[in-house]
Formats: sequence, structure tokens, C-alpha cells
Amino acid sequence: MCGWGDAMPDLRKDPVVGRWVIISTERARRPSDFKTEPVVARGGNCVFCPGNEDKTPPEILVGRPPDSSANTSGWSFRVVANKFPALRIEGDLEPTGEGLYDRMNGVGAHEVVIEAPDHQATLASLPVDAVADVLLAYRERVVDLKKDPRFEYVLVFKNHGEAAGASLEHPHSQLIATPIIPIMVTEELTGSAQYFEIKERCVWCDIVRQERRTRSRIVLESNGFVALAPFAPRFPFETWILPTRHRSAFEETGVDELRGLAEVLGEFLRRMERVLKHPPFNYMLHTAPLREGPLEHFHWHLEIIPKLTQVAGYEWGSGFFINPVPPENAAAALREPTT
Amino acid sequence: MCGWGDAMPDLRKDPVVGRWVIISTERARRPSDFKTEPVVARGGNCVFCPGNEDKTPPEILVGRPPDSSANTSGWSFRVVANKFPALRIEGDLEPTGEGLYDRMNGVGAHEVVIEAPDHQATLASLPVDAVADVLLAYRERVVDLKKDPRFEYVLVFKNHGEAAGASLEHPHSQLIATPIIPIMVTEELTGSAQYFEIKERCVWCDIVRQERRTRSRIVLESNGFVALAPFAPRFPFETWILPTRHRSAFEETGVDELRGLAEVLGEFLRRMERVLKHPPFNYMLHTAPLREGPLEHFHWHLEIIPKLTQVAGYEWGSGFFINPVPPENAAAALREPTT
Repeated sequence: MCGWGDAMPDLRKDPVVGRWVIISTERARRPSDFKTEPVVARGGNCVFCPGNEDKTPPEILVGRPPDSSANTSGWSFRVVANKFPALRIEGDLEPTGEGLYDRMNGVGAHEVVIEAPDHQATLASLPVDAVADVLLAYRERVVDLKKDPRFEYVLVFKNHGEAAGASLEHPHSQLIATPIIPIMVTEELTGSAQYFEIKERCVWCDIVRQERRTRSRIVLESNGFVALAPFAPRFPFETWILPTRHRSAFEETGVDELRGLAEVLGEFLRRMERVLKHPPFNYMLHTAPLREGPLEHFHWHLEIIPKLTQVAGYEWGSGFFINPVPPENAAAALREPTT
Repeated sequence: MCGWGDAMPDLRKDPVVGRWVIISTERARRPSDFKTEPVVARGGNCVFCPGNEDKTPPEILVGRPPDSSANTSGWSFRVVANKFPALRIEGDLEPTGEGLYDRMNGVGAHEVVIEAPDHQATLASLPVDAVADVLLAYRERVVDLKKDPRFEYVLVFKNHGEAAGASLEHPHSQLIATPIIPIMVTEELTGSAQYFEIKERCVWCDIVRQERRTRSRIVLESNGFVALAPFAPRFPFETWILPTRHRSAFEETGVDELRGLAEVLGEFLRRMERVLKHPPFNYMLHTAPLREGPLEHFHWHLEIIPKLTQVAGYEWGSGFFINPVPPENAAAALREPTT
């Protein structure tokens, strides 16, 4: 019941701040295991490369010609279950108390979006249609996972490069569906609801309006999307991409809109690669919780954070980030278009 | 005013979640600077080693024999201003708005506690009296900085090892005084006040009581302090050290109590070094804000986090940490005493 090596991971809540954690027994390690980092598979023996479809769990969603067979090569993107999931898809939540503590079973979905067959491709190098297909895959998986009443949230994210936490080199992103709304999303929901109560406007709509007026933190803007450096970024070159019109649920984005997002994302990533010399990075999609209808106060957005600095004791202890790059300088460097 | 290369750092508040960041122009870097990591000075040319006292700002607090001169060798510990401070000690806060944003000048103190003259020493290897002196230095600096009415909080922390963010090898810790209470401390204050309102007890006192009863997450206990693995740890082998009696302000700890803490901290660090093979780590001291009197609901504690895993997109996007080591397993491994 406490995750002593049994198969079911545990979800546990900190009794002071209400932050949940995943105690992932699937990935359990002994102290001696921490010195050996997971191997990054390089071309040749990569489990995500075409020809190795039998080395991953079966396809959940795929882009492939109608005449090709499932789980064989010929695909343009694939979504599969994570072979080493942080959470398990089977089972009931069984929330229980342990004295003053709260826990539940680590039920959830953990999937991988293999973005392209080419091991060397990136979202910066892929054609816009291929990037749009990846975004469409995100949308379709959120729509599908929403049908499972156990889940409250799906977080789509990407780890690119070993320093950003990627354990495989092949271009991929991930999503994790949880029975709990992550605390950072809750904080955004609470803060934006408070703002709405006072102003009767969406705070992100106001941010977009003000940034478009002052321009100093705008990176690029086209096709209904804007990429901007936030006023108070945690990390150097942190960038947010938002739809310019108010939208709370990512999964309600239309195909044409996704293509617009693909263009802005691809162009942003190319600029970031040029300015920062192909940095490791993460991105995370913040959208409204699955069980909410359209929200007037929440505005979905993609947060992109290049991994350039170490996070150290001060940040871990305070939540107060020290950022050596003013966002105006970052935006100015990223504003120059790629040729 | 926006930190465009002028000397004063900027404190800026995220308009959605209320999290402040430090835009540190003193440490400002251009995009091309990120590939070269700061050099870790090794023995010989270390600015913190005896004989190099003129390479640091002057001593603010020091342990040295009465017959030795300030800023010369012969000391047992030294506190100096950080030569590359994240915040600046001079100036007024001048809080201002920029449309919907809030900012103020980056006023604060950033100091370094050089823990011992020996470059190779660590808090695990130093005698208990020397560790107690370091803790006493923390206390004295908090007491002194409390006199400055601009400051609301002092966070004491330590980065040990390059992977944990240390830029110098010589044993040292740091403290940062800010005009703002860090958001993580605010969250602990809010959560513990809510608990107190319902239960009329301190949540950490309840945690200590429950853990002492169940034992499975207790690492060690002596001299009025307990080291335990929290129920919902963010990181593998995360450990908290707390006074077993209720205490809200670290700076009110008596000399005898500090010696008890020094014994528990030293013994814990020796066990961690043995079990995890000298890992990089951080620790952070959470104490009540400077302007609070004794608080019934807040209980100071030291959080220790070995740096064993990468923090990746899921954690950055969700605040939902995936931890591969159940705290019961971590505590069991750390329970065995060093010989």
C-alpha cells in the first residue's frame, strides 16, 4: 500500500502545501542505481525508429497510408503507451488516508508521441504539415482520454536533449493523464479567476493586449498566435505561445488553427536553435482541466523553457527564480527571423 | 527601469500566479555566454582559501582568535557579501506598475558563509563544534538582517557540487534577504494556517508525532531534532530536519539547540554520503518571515535534497514531481548509523 516495491505507483499529497507527487515504483531505483544514467539510444538501435515498431507498445494513434499495416514502418507519426509509465492505466483510485496523510493509487495514462520517422528530425526542421500532425495527435489524445471519467487533466510536454531530461534522442513528446489537476494549473486557475473577478477580463487576454502595444517582449506573431517573453520569466529565454483570441481548451482548437500554431512553433524553435545554438529545452501545454466547460478566465498556452542554467538551492527553497536575462533582451534576440 | 543592462536588478511579479522573480543584471549574460559554464575553482587559486581574504568582500562576521587581524588568515569561518550578488544592498524598493505588471528594485542582501578554511572539508567531515559555528553564523546573520526594515525574509541555503548549482568547490553556504516573502514559504504559511484553523495544532508537530509512532520514515532522532523522509517527497532521498518541539523562528534557537542540530545534520550528511556515494545536494532553511512574532502554526525546518534525477518538462509544467524512490525505502537505507 505504501509503494514498497509492489507494482502500483502511489499518488501522495503533501499535508502542508497540498502538492501531490507520484511515487513511481515502475521506475523504482536503489541507491546504487543513481550513478548510471539511462542510456540515450542513438541511430541504429533506437526503439522509436522505423523497423522497430515491435519494440514499443502497440500504436494508439498513427499517421500512415491506408495500405500499410499497423505497427509496421511507413508511418509519419505514432502515439504509443510509454513502456516505463510513471502511472498505470489499470485500476481504481481507492483514495485512502494514513493518519493525517492522503494517498491514492497511481492511476493514469502515460503516452509517447513519436513525432517523425527520421531519427535526426526535430520540430524545427520538420515541414509545417508534419508539425501540425503532431499537434493534431496531441488534440486527439486529449479528446480520447477525456472520455475516461477517472482523469481530471492531461498535460502534454516535451523533453528535448539529455540535459532537459530526455532519455531517448529520437524526436518525441509525451503526455500524462492524471486523476488530479496539477498544482501549477490550479494556481493559474485560482490567480486568473481572482483577476477575472476584479476586472471581468481574462488576464492572458490583457497580457497579449499590453504586449502587442509595448512590443518589447513580443517575439513573433502570425496566424492567430503570438510568441512572447513573459514579464516575469523564471528562466532565460522562457517563451509563451498563446492564441491571440480567447480560448480555454486546447482540445477545441480547429485544424486550421493548429496549422497556424505549427507555423509559429516551428519558426520559434528555429530562431531559438539559431540564437542559443541548439539548446536542450522543455515545453509544456497548459490547458483547462478536462471537466471544465469553456472558461472565461483561463487561456491555454504553451510554455517553452530552454535549459541553460542550473536550478539550485535558492530556487528550490523559495520558488523565487533568479534569471540573468531580462525578457526584453531575450525577445530582441529572438525577434530576428530565420532566413 | 526594465533591466536593460543598468546596474540595479529588477524584482518582477507574474500577474497570474503572483510568483516573483529576480532579473539579475549583475549576472546578465548574452546568448553566446551560455555554452561556457562558470569555472569551479580548485585548490590553489580558490578565492575562499586562507591567504586570499583580499579576493572577497570584507568580513561581515567571522570566527577567529582575538589576536588575529580582520581579513587575514587564521579564521575558522567567514561571512562575506557575495561578489556577484543576485540583489543589491543599496537603494529603495520603489515599487511601480507597468500596465498590469508589478515590479520593484532588486534590493536585498546576498551573503556567503565560508564554512571552514580547509578547501576539502565538508559539513559531513567537520567536527560538530565547527558545524555548530556555521549554524550560529546563519542565526547571527538573520538576526542582523532583521534590523533592516526593507527585508521581509532571509533564506539560508547551500549548493554542494556542480550539479547542484555550486560554482565554487570550497565549502560554503549562502543567504539571500529579500523585501518579499518567497512564494514557497507563503504557501507553507497558508497551508499550515488552514490546518491550524481546523485542528488547532501545528501540522509539522502532527507530522513529527505521527512519524515517531509509525517509524517507517524516521531517519534519525537525537538532541531535540528529528530527520525524516517526508510522506510526499518531490525528490529521491529528500529529507527534512525539524526541532521536535514547536519552534517557528530559526533565529531564536539557543546555542545548545544549535549544537544538537549540528550533530543531527552532520550525522545525516555522513549517512547520505555513504548511501549515495557523495552526491551533489542542496539544503534550504524554511523559517517564519522576519516580521512575524512567534507563530503557532509554523514550524521551522531544514529541507535537504540530493541531486540525483533530472527535473524535466512534466515537473516544470505541473509542479507534480515523479519520484522513483518511496520515502520508506530511502529512510530505511539512511537509518543505518555510520561507524
